[in-house]
Amino acid sequence: MRVAAIGLAWFGPLDLDRGSPTYGFVTTTPKPGWPRADVAGAFEAVGVPVTIDTDVNAAALGEYRWGAGRGAEPFVYVTVGTGIGGGAIIHGRPLHGLGHPEMGHIAIPRDPADAFAGACPYHGACLEGLASGVALRTRWGAAPETLPAQHEAWRLQARYLALGIVAITAVLAPPKIVLGGGVMRAPGLLERVRIETDAALAGYVRGPELLAPGLGERAGVLGAVALAQQALSERGVQ
Amino acid sequence: MRVAAIGLAWFGPLDLDRGSPTYGFVTTTPKPGWPRADVAGAFEAVGVPVTIDTDVNAAALGEYRWGAGRGAEPFVYVTVGTGIGGGAIIHGRPLHGLGHPEMGHIAIPRDPADAFAGACPYHGACLEGLASGVALRTRWGAAPETLPAQHEAWRLQARYLALGIVAITAVLAPPKIVLGGGVMRAPGLLERVRIETDAALAGYVRGPELLAPGLGERAGVLGAVALAQQALSERGVQ
Repeated sequence: MRVAAIGLAWFGPLDLDRGSPTYGFVTTTPKPGWPRADVAGAFEAVGVPVTIDTDVNAAALGEYRWGAGRGAEPFVYVTVGTGIGGGAIIHGRPLHGLGHPEMGHIAIPRDPADAFAGACPYHGACLEGLASGVALRTRWGAAPETLPAQHEAWRLQARYLALGIVAITAVLAPPKIVLGGGVMRAPGLLERVRIETDAALAGYVRGPELLAPGLGERAGVLGAVALAQQALSERGVQ
Repeated sequence: MRVAAIGLAWFGPLDLDRGSPTYGFVTTTPKPGWPRADVAGAFEAVGVPVTIDTDVNAAALGEYRWGAGRGAEPFVYVTVGTGIGGGAIIHGRPLHGLGHPEMGHIAIPRDPADAFAGACPYHGACLEGLASGVALRTRWGAAPETLPAQHEAWRLQARYLALGIVAITAVLAPPKIVLGGGVMRAPGLLERVRIETDAALAGYVRGPELLAPGLGERAGVLGAVALAQQALSERGVQ
């Protein structure tokens, strides 16, 4: 079996600026040994075209190409797990700007009933600080998957995710957003997020369809396949 | 003089879905006589190619093509006037999704010192509800341009605009955002927004350059020219 191209769905933050001398490097991360690691370079040693992107951008691309995001322009994938991240696909490609999006760090209004300071070391009570798996565990002193469906945690969780979706909708107007990640597997949560999003948009802005991943756990891996295809097509090898 | 194409920079909300039977119509608006007005259709009667977009998307395109947004990918233009609106240029075109962006309606955290309920009839204390010209006038009982530079209003205003910019940055990662509109002409406000944005991003996410319009009051009109050029190039007339 011949390797024709490599697609890398990697943890961020990554330098994705093609003009940068550190393109394809991990930038700042608390993971020991990983700051400034040349990930793309290591794989380019194989001698085939390599495309690297963040794990969440890759999952977004996977869902857009083969999952629940087909036909959506633009398309957004949000993962709610240990942290919160989001990737956008615009004109068929993951959106890059000054780096990649950091949708977990949207500033959202705190719920009046919530006294939790927030779990983000940078922003305290940003979306990730209030609604990540780590935030849930810290606020309630229990693993999210052990909290029963009628627990107050889920009302608050749905409300916070809805406020993040309002910001994404106001900025990008995506017709579809897929919500993945471990926390979204909580029974009934997706439906509660839909209801809270409708309430928060208040009928002024048309809201996106909010969907579960079509590819389940395979969005990231299939996204990496799509990145490898992109690596080939960019070099005219198709 | 021959008219070769028409570019329309129109007040929104507009139906910009090319596949819709009401493409180019004003949709819902409180302006008497304007709901469901076929604006693009009226101009198509001239018999030349017509492109229509919102006034803020056109201003964004103008600044991107000939103003302070040149070379920025993606590029965002935000206008802070009677209301607040924002347009994004991605791959050289105004971003459209499910309608157009409504960046004024991002949900932001209220400042603890601010007791004002918010001026948005739909969301109360969204970005526009807290930081538009109407919000300023209502909260302080005075026209924004009469409030002195050291008035508390401007600290709050800079903080709220920074929180909107944080959301835009987290979602789109634009290297440059141009801030236009009448409220932004307040002396020192742009610099205060830069400082508050740096504080709110807290060093985690790289912030965009925040710039005054390069085209001054002409961004919208020049954007309409760019839309007319786009109308021609789309029909291969270039």
